[in-house]
Amino acid sequence: MAAKSLASCIFCKIIKGEIPSYKLVETDLVYSFLDIGPLSRGHALIIPKYHAEKMHETPDEYLSATLPVAKKIALAIGADDYNVLQNNGKLAHQEVNHVHFHVIPKPSESDDEGLVIGWPTHKVPQEDLKKLHEEILLKL
Amino acid sequence: MAAKSLASCIFCKIIKGEIPSYKLVETDLVYSFLDIGPLSRGHALIIPKYHAEKMHETPDEYLSATLPVAKKIALAIGADDYNVLQNNGKLAHQEVNHVHFHVIPKPSESDDEGLVIGWPTHKVPQEDLKKLHEEILLKL
Repeated sequence: MAAKSLASCIFCKIIKGEIPSYKLVETDLVYSFLDIGPLSRGHALIIPKYHAEKMHETPDEYLSATLPVAKKIALAIGADDYNVLQNNGKLAHQEVNHVHFHVIPKPSESDDEGLVIGWPTHKVPQEDLKKLHEEILLKL
Repeated sequence: MAAKSLASCIFCKIIKGEIPSYKLVETDLVYSFLDIGPLSRGHALIIPKYHAEKMHETPDEYLSATLPVAKKIALAIGADDYNVLQNNGKLAHQEVNHVHFHVIPKPSESDDEGLVIGWPTHKVPQEDLKKLHEEILLKL
């Protein structure tokens, strides 16, 4: 699908070079660069060259091109421990409304560097999971 | 690259059907299912049918197949706000040593459901970013 751009979008401007960035890998479909407000050293962003707000609105070809670039960057950064994160919507901590994938090194246990994760696991009865499963299958 | 499996790996067992799962989408390259210890309703996992511990050890073709399936699941779950997360290594909260991507709905602001995110942003001098950028470019 042809690239789609939004004039007012800060990430579309970065792709077009209208705003400078510390560019890493660029392909026909994605662009990547260093986050200038990093959570840790090497924190990078990979964005599709297609303006969509959320992951599920992004054409497959752009999504398919994304993780191999994230992998290349992870290898170049040389992080052993790191998170790949993509946030959709305000509730989920999305701050720029153009799909972006973070590669965030986690060099230590410290809450002062890297992504800090809270994991409120729920115990769900098998019965409920089974019902949910059936519901989702109908929509797949 | 041909599928690679590890007999003792719980996710490899799920792929082979030796351990039951609430399967969602399965393709030649990836398998997806409901997380049985969900952070929120609809929390799902997508895993490559290739045993690698971390994202950067996974062949590109498996990575390329992953996000289109995550997208399909996000659409079926119907979440407006959600996180896509993949953890590498213990420091980064990886709990099963087979690459897996979470799709985690975030239905509310509550820390009791969905991923809880802490974001310790660092102010880094441009000089340092520039130097880091040059270092990484040499390895790309």
